[in-house]
Amino acid sequence: MRMRKKKWAAGELIENPRILRDAEDYKGRMTEIFTNNRPIHLEIGCGKGRFISETSRRNPDINYIAMEREAVILAAASRKARESKANALIFLLADVKDIKEYFKAGDISRLYINFCDPWPTKKKRARRRLTHEGFLQLYESLKIPELFFKTDNRILFEASIESFSRQKWLVQNVSLDLHKSDMKDNIMTEYEEKFSPHGPIYRLEAYPPNSHMIL
Amino acid sequence: MRMRKKKWAAGELIENPRILRDAEDYKGRMTEIFTNNRPIHLEIGCGKGRFISETSRRNPDINYIAMEREAVILAAASRKARESKANALIFLLADVKDIKEYFKAGDISRLYINFCDPWPTKKKRARRRLTHEGFLQLYESLKIPELFFKTDNRILFEASIESFSRQKWLVQNVSLDLHKSDMKDNIMTEYEEKFSPHGPIYRLEAYPPNSHMIL
Repeated sequence: MRMRKKKWAAGELIENPRILRDAEDYKGRMTEIFTNNRPIHLEIGCGKGRFISETSRRNPDINYIAMEREAVILAAASRKARESKANALIFLLADVKDIKEYFKAGDISRLYINFCDPWPTKKKRARRRLTHEGFLQLYESLKIPELFFKTDNRILFEASIESFSRQKWLVQNVSLDLHKSDMKDNIMTEYEEKFSPHGPIYRLEAYPPNSHMIL
Repeated sequence: MRMRKKKWAAGELIENPRILRDAEDYKGRMTEIFTNNRPIHLEIGCGKGRFISETSRRNPDINYIAMEREAVILAAASRKARESKANALIFLLADVKDIKEYFKAGDISRLYINFCDPWPTKKKRARRRLTHEGFLQLYESLKIPELFFKTDNRILFEASIESFSRQKWLVQNVSLDLHKSDMKDNIMTEYEEKFSPHGPIYRLEAYPPNSHMIL
């Protein structure tokens, strides 16, 4: 997602209390940014933030962290959270590949990936997909017990199913046309609202090996 | 699939040498119907038979068996095979649930399931789906190393991915819109040709646990 630089973004980045400004200090003890022990759900690549703000608003018993590596986008997302009535929701300007610098194994109870960059199929680029096997191993090493994934990109979704399968994740609640499915309470991202008229939205839930013994 | 009874069907069933008439005698030794040791690929629910006839025509090094439990449909399929230039292709009037009466573990090298009955989602009926977990266990017990599956039914395909995942099958080469994918040499079934203008065709390849160690 590209956004032109806007004046307000700088102010937002400086002043919005939802943005974790001294992130370096919290490395390895991110759970301490919340003053309670509630589960942490993390969205990586939160875009303009409607999804995570609304999810937070509806689930006061969960602590949310939204990661985004583009500062201007993060600013927009945090502004959205300020305007909505999001509960415990903190924004973190960081790249997913550095996730282990911030979180310890067991810190994150759920991971959301919504409409991530599909990258071209060429092998080198495909590795950057947030559902590529390398990333799944990263999430697994953090003992994240569940991952909720949405995309409108058919080729990405096909590759993701294969990737989860190769890594022996359990894939459940697959929707190949989310907006025609019986899933209730879907919260649309800005992107989803814009692009869903052009084709189906795909969604799945995935559970890493050993986490789903109890299912 | 329903077909009105037609006069030719009786003649076809009596005379077409491709139909295995003394099937009872071959129970447990189905491989002996072929006079060579080539791999056997089995289609269950072959419908009107275009897929398996054409697949056989293109692959002279494979022995094919097409199972169908409806006699009139089997007659149509075997007629199609007679008219085309199918190679080693034999038709078997039988129900999939009796598959173990005919085949021993290791007999079948590939299983094709094309546009099987999706059955309603209600639990009792869903068990009849040929990709339901009970059936996957059956195929696994026969040590079938690979399964190729196509359908136009979204809900069936979603449930099938979940079913394969729960049974720890490896799912690969997923197509969520087969006719827009880069898969070459897709052989359309009669049903596929008729219904593909109305929506996407879904396809995947699946490998039971322990069979895919070498992949």
